Amino acid sequence: MTTVPTTSHVHRTAAIISQGDEIVLGQTLDTNSRWLSARLLDAGVLPIEHVSLPDDRDAIAAAFRRLGERVDLIICSGGLGPTADDLTRFALLDVVGGTMVEDQPSLAAIRAYFESRGRVMNDLNRVQAMRPDGAVMIPNPHGTAPGLCASLPGGSELFCLPGPPREMMPMFEQHVRPRLRLEPGRAVATRSLHTIGLGESEIAARLTIAGDMMARTRNPSVGTTASQSIVSVRMRYEGPSDAAAAALDADEAAVRALLGSAVFASGEQSLAGAILDHLRAVGQTLSVAESCTGGLLGSLLTDVPGSSDAFIAGWLTYSNQAKRRDLGVPAALFSESGHTAAPGAVSAEVASALAEGARRVAGSTFALSITGIAGPGGAVPGKPVGTVFIGLAGEGCPTKVRRFAMSGDRATVRDWSARAALAMLWFQLVGDATTTLLREVQLDGTPFAIK
Amino acid sequence: MTTVPTTSHVHRTAAIISQGDEIVLGQTLDTNSRWLSARLLDAGVLPIEHVSLPDDRDAIAAAFRRLGERVDLIICSGGLGPTADDLTRFALLDVVGGTMVEDQPSLAAIRAYFESRGRVMNDLNRVQAMRPDGAVMIPNPHGTAPGLCASLPGGSELFCLPGPPREMMPMFEQHVRPRLRLEPGRAVATRSLHTIGLGESEIAARLTIAGDMMARTRNPSVGTTASQSIVSVRMRYEGPSDAAAAALDADEAAVRALLGSAVFASGEQSLAGAILDHLRAVGQTLSVAESCTGGLLGSLLTDVPGSSDAFIAGWLTYSNQAKRRDLGVPAALFSESGHTAAPGAVSAEVASALAEGARRVAGSTFALSITGIAGPGGAVPGKPVGTVFIGLAGEGCPTKVRRFAMSGDRATVRDWSARAALAMLWFQLVGDATTTLLREVQLDGTPFAIK
Repeated sequence: MTTVPTTSHVHRTAAIISQGDEIVLGQTLDTNSRWLSARLLDAGVLPIEHVSLPDDRDAIAAAFRRLGERVDLIICSGGLGPTADDLTRFALLDVVGGTMVEDQPSLAAIRAYFESRGRVMNDLNRVQAMRPDGAVMIPNPHGTAPGLCASLPGGSELFCLPGPPREMMPMFEQHVRPRLRLEPGRAVATRSLHTIGLGESEIAARLTIAGDMMARTRNPSVGTTASQSIVSVRMRYEGPSDAAAAALDADEAAVRALLGSAVFASGEQSLAGAILDHLRAVGQTLSVAESCTGGLLGSLLTDVPGSSDAFIAGWLTYSNQAKRRDLGVPAALFSESGHTAAPGAVSAEVASALAEGARRVAGSTFALSITGIAGPGGAVPGKPVGTVFIGLAGEGCPTKVRRFAMSGDRATVRDWSARAALAMLWFQLVGDATTTLLREVQLDGTPFAIK
Repeated sequence: MTTVPTTSHVHRTAAIISQGDEIVLGQTLDTNSRWLSARLLDAGVLPIEHVSLPDDRDAIAAAFRRLGERVDLIICSGGLGPTADDLTRFALLDVVGGTMVEDQPSLAAIRAYFESRGRVMNDLNRVQAMRPDGAVMIPNPHGTAPGLCASLPGGSELFCLPGPPREMMPMFEQHVRPRLRLEPGRAVATRSLHTIGLGESEIAARLTIAGDMMARTRNPSVGTTASQSIVSVRMRYEGPSDAAAAALDADEAAVRALLGSAVFASGEQSLAGAILDHLRAVGQTLSVAESCTGGLLGSLLTDVPGSSDAFIAGWLTYSNQAKRRDLGVPAALFSESGHTAAPGAVSAEVASALAEGARRVAGSTFALSITGIAGPGGAVPGKPVGTVFIGLAGEGCPTKVRRFAMSGDRATVRDWSARAALAMLWFQLVGDATTTLLREVQLDGTPFAIK
């Protein structure tokens, strides 16, 4: 490979472009931009804009020009394929000028890629070896599309990578990341803490009272983001690299002190991961019994690598028959039993019996159960869509049931329900039985009294 | 609510802005832009750019100005929260001028929202009732952040919606979509067909041979997008509205004829939904036994409204003990039995026993089982990470097991596995036993011969 052209200035800021009709028309979710941003930030380069553009040569060239004036580094993914709608290299030519040339090493690599798979290179693929003569190629070991690197007229550096993540990601790690130029002694560093049980405005109020931690001009800056029932506190430091760790350590300690047991994890760890770590550390185990969530809670738990150390079994007791047969829920609790006072499948009694049944059959330290009405059908008088009962049985402690009034569509009710179950277990594990969870109501369905 | 300001021109093109440090820094995946694009395209408005911006008032205002010159409609989500890093309303003020006023009906609605949940409005939330005097509020029934609507200086119309999807989506449907202004007599209409079992290049080859259906200049245009194992064929018509239905009907019929039983659904329907419809129509039922997917397959099935008509039970037999105890898998099949020839938990024999056990205990027409190595740990000689066996037991037919060699990380292996199980059942239901599935290998682990 030839030498990548270098410019003199460091890479402080970056923009990320995702290229393709399918993204802008809403047919494909762009996940490259998020991944690239996180990697750049880790490396000390601050991403300041994401743009997705259609297969439109002029629009791509205009974005290269506009962002080339604003940022030090542009990473563009997509639009390097062999077909007529792949236009990134031509847009680059429009911006850097010169002529399009065929890169012989790249052509040989593409031909070898096909041959290694017992196929013959299609003539269409020849265009993938073309580059503006001022650009250089970036090798692609996992596909036929090499990348491109060029300096834009304003001095900004542009890397064009293919769109498929399994090609783009290794090319970034192997060929882009080593070429990032950072200002000596300067760092951008981030840290995040994740909480459950407190609303975003309650968290903001606590952080604001404590020395205005959320002030815009503060360094580290502190912000919050809510994703379903989980609120994350994000800290971002920018300055001399030797002061980064101490500044973030101090803020992390302050936030933890202000938010207490609501903080369940930092960084990339999920609530399920934090719970499983906790259980694993003390040799405890967990089972689940799910009705309306139908596997979602189990899926969140088993998404965590090594979950089999603590998660041992689950039952998707979707029908009442399964609730009775597999977990011994008494038939008299169901409406079809004919008992006029039967609480029904969506009740505290059934949630309790499911949790105790799962714990007993699985022989686990804890068991969580969920029974509710995810909608859109299934509502009964006094139990609207979104009514969910969550049970928690534990060795040597009384079984607890909490009731929730979830809002939103079926997917939202299911997602909140699975996370609320995890939250119940989290607060049990950390010994906090007093926190009222978001969307929790009293067992008779009435809201809790205003504090 | 007061009247939304109207501009005279129609909405032909749109840009979508997602607002928030967490998106640009790569901490949160933006899913709003994709959703909004798909909805706009359905409604006849062409999205031509997505932009994600940090919590930076000047950057947001600059984007409103730049895009206001280029498109007829801008939808911005995020940045309407109660905290100091929520700056969308202030950026809007910078662009439209005037003064910031407190909107009394919105303030009352926010207060009522808190009261309905038994909470008191925090003073911080007051800012959410503020708007530039030239803008109007869009009500938000699912949260505390009303939206904003304003005409920008260039005549473009801007809607600002909150970031959380469960708030943003209903606000778009109820308050933005009815206000879209389309050119009389002109339509943009789309249709999509979803397939399983065929690769994207095989589908492209069939569509190209048949009258070059994928030519760029064709109307309707026809394209393919692959999402994991599912390939969707998307048709998009643009022209006189009275000819739209006939053009799309003709293309849909042509595509269905070319792709046969691989087409499982159209529009928004999922593979799980198509399977459940099929089962429901003939009064059949389904149960599942999941090991490495730990609830993901059950979750995909029960995500479908009304799934309880056909999905009756599931077992998350994560431990070998659970496999034996709940579903009667013979102890001799497991390595810990001491039998030197024991096939082990990840084997065709255990997949078969799990499926048959689930079907027997649940009393269901069909049962699917999944056992595999999702990684990153757990590989054994001859069974690398990604080795997955899927079993299908059915009333009155021999139990089938297929082996797969999945690639990718834990989440990818789990996702492909759950979808491959659904694919197996789909082809069983439509009577096609011959299609080799993507990533399928022979039971001994060797690849199938190249056709």
